[in-house]
Amino acid sequence: MNTNEKKAIALHKKLGGKIRIESATPIRNREDLALVYTPGVAAVSSLVAKNPKSAREYTMKGRTVAVISDGSSVLGLGNIGPLGALPVMEGKCGLFKVFGGVDAVPIVLDLSTTVEAGTQAEIDAIVETVIRIAPAFGGINFEDIAAPKCFDIERRVIEALDIPVMHDDQHGTAIVVLAGILNALKVVGKKLTTSDVVILGAGAAGTASAKLLHIAGVRNIVVLDSKGIVTSSRPEAHKRELAKLNVKKIRGGLRDALKGADILLGVSGPNLVRKSDIKLMNKKAIVFAMANPTPEIMPDEAKRGGAMIVGTGRSDFPNQINNSLAFPGIFRGALDNKVTKITMEMKLRAAKAIAGLIKHPRAGKIVPDMFDKRVAPAVAKVIR
Amino acid sequence: MNTNEKKAIALHKKLGGKIRIESATPIRNREDLALVYTPGVAAVSSLVAKNPKSAREYTMKGRTVAVISDGSSVLGLGNIGPLGALPVMEGKCGLFKVFGGVDAVPIVLDLSTTVEAGTQAEIDAIVETVIRIAPAFGGINFEDIAAPKCFDIERRVIEALDIPVMHDDQHGTAIVVLAGILNALKVVGKKLTTSDVVILGAGAAGTASAKLLHIAGVRNIVVLDSKGIVTSSRPEAHKRELAKLNVKKIRGGLRDALKGADILLGVSGPNLVRKSDIKLMNKKAIVFAMANPTPEIMPDEAKRGGAMIVGTGRSDFPNQINNSLAFPGIFRGALDNKVTKITMEMKLRAAKAIAGLIKHPRAGKIVPDMFDKRVAPAVAKVIR
Repeated sequence: MNTNEKKAIALHKKLGGKIRIESATPIRNREDLALVYTPGVAAVSSLVAKNPKSAREYTMKGRTVAVISDGSSVLGLGNIGPLGALPVMEGKCGLFKVFGGVDAVPIVLDLSTTVEAGTQAEIDAIVETVIRIAPAFGGINFEDIAAPKCFDIERRVIEALDIPVMHDDQHGTAIVVLAGILNALKVVGKKLTTSDVVILGAGAAGTASAKLLHIAGVRNIVVLDSKGIVTSSRPEAHKRELAKLNVKKIRGGLRDALKGADILLGVSGPNLVRKSDIKLMNKKAIVFAMANPTPEIMPDEAKRGGAMIVGTGRSDFPNQINNSLAFPGIFRGALDNKVTKITMEMKLRAAKAIAGLIKHPRAGKIVPDMFDKRVAPAVAKVIR
Repeated sequence: MNTNEKKAIALHKKLGGKIRIESATPIRNREDLALVYTPGVAAVSSLVAKNPKSAREYTMKGRTVAVISDGSSVLGLGNIGPLGALPVMEGKCGLFKVFGGVDAVPIVLDLSTTVEAGTQAEIDAIVETVIRIAPAFGGINFEDIAAPKCFDIERRVIEALDIPVMHDDQHGTAIVVLAGILNALKVVGKKLTTSDVVILGAGAAGTASAKLLHIAGVRNIVVLDSKGIVTSSRPEAHKRELAKLNVKKIRGGLRDALKGADILLGVSGPNLVRKSDIKLMNKKAIVFAMANPTPEIMPDEAKRGGAMIVGTGRSDFPNQINNSLAFPGIFRGALDNKVTKITMEMKLRAAKAIAGLIKHPRAGKIVPDMFDKRVAPAVAKVIR
């Protein structure tokens, strides 16, 4: 265990949980109590029950998001279950507050006692459960739910609820990836529509990034999983969809895909890409190697392979492609502007808003810093 | 609408929800972030996943309670649904923090889209949903769930989970009722074991109060609902159970029950009891008329009928029998002492602890003030 890990464990033990729930108003005496609780609250309850839309004004619903996980795909740790996921969800809720001023509640789901893992019944149970607990919340942020079940779950909950629902591992990542690519292309002097993209990883982040890049204008996107380039004969529905984006019908493995490609997005695992692979790419290649904590290829190595711009998920290298640039502003804007669905257009605008904060992009600076206070307001503004 | 109601509505609109979720620690820079979120949090997640019991130390679970309602029996408003219930749950969470230092999260359940109201499937759905969302919480406080479904729901969730689960409308009320009765009996010079009790109302509060008073030593308890004294031929299982406490086999209505009774507990509705009814009771009668906001009988009227001690649920009369004397300390103690079930013994001890804070009970002072800071710690101490 390294020093940072030891310090993290000590801090968590000292804090005993990373969020605190406070009364928004003092309750010092009977007069206070008569307003926030009985008897005064009855008038508010009646009003909200009669006019459900007013809940956004009179209750926590107008300011609060649920951060929900089943712990099936936590960081690089995999399927560690709901309790293992809880420290991550608490941390995320802290970021929601600090970066976006959004009140966020961690909810971790234990399906094990009621349904069998990996079944359709489990997906149904997650969907049902989230729909049932939704009334108090003005938005749902899904987190660390494994692919492919994350796709069905998100789609069904979006359809069922009239509040914004977003799986951040998909769309938060995709938005920031697009933001980074927009600025990287300016630096290298290429265009989205004529750049060939290779995505290594067909999970939540890879799938959503492929779709958003396609909508943004990229014409050819080759997606790979551990078995190679995904094709229309794959058993998973989302991979068959991704195969349609491979308009040049490239077949084979990573090296086949990278030949002449302009952009490589790695959202897979550590050390899967070599310098010799990068050398196959087109001139002025853009490489985002986002596996955490160990990227698909280290930045120096990618540059030696010919990459002109490299981004990672890490804070100790330039160009940190981190979804915390997106989610706080996305939900801040959705709550403020009473948005009921996060649309593709909003995601595109969010990516452009993030990219737009860098007036003069350069190889070492294609996205804003995570702590740049302009980011969340700029994103929130375009979520409408 | 009265002035207080108008003020309550204005305050709720100004606040936009009565709870706030804050990060327990500052997140100002990459160093902070590396401890509360990636990469440091991974070590904490691994540790908690390997040793689930450690979640109480390292996560919100050790300090946080969920306050859960389906909105089926809210205050005096009835079945107004989850959004109508939300302002009440938020207020309750405020009280949890202010009185007990307990972090509490409001969760309101919408079952309507997945099951039919009033069915066994609805009960199953509530039970399942609560079990699934339980991992992040160190306790479950059920609130404003209608009888009789509240009984099954509470029992099944208690059995399924290893955290304390309590329906406060039942047990919080019962504990404070018993506390008040213990001191009232001292004032009038009677004993629990030789006092006959009449309970008007066979819902959540009446049922739990009957059971706790029985365990505490009361030998004869006659419970009435809107159809009169409940008997063993009633269709509802919980009422048949209550009929067993009527050891003197009294039959008929309220006046039959009150003849020679020592204690009347009203947990029903407004103005259901008259002065002439109270006159039927034994000398030095004790009357708790707890319907809110209008009691079963006004205190002056009860006294004119011969009652020596009167309690109500209201703050503008002496002897406010309010469950906020119990629930903050119950859950504070359960969390501090890692209690997994709230037992009958704990409830008895809690009632005695509350009563014990009044050194010299008198007719106008049988329970502590809600804002008496000694109450929650005294209750918490005996929940072990």
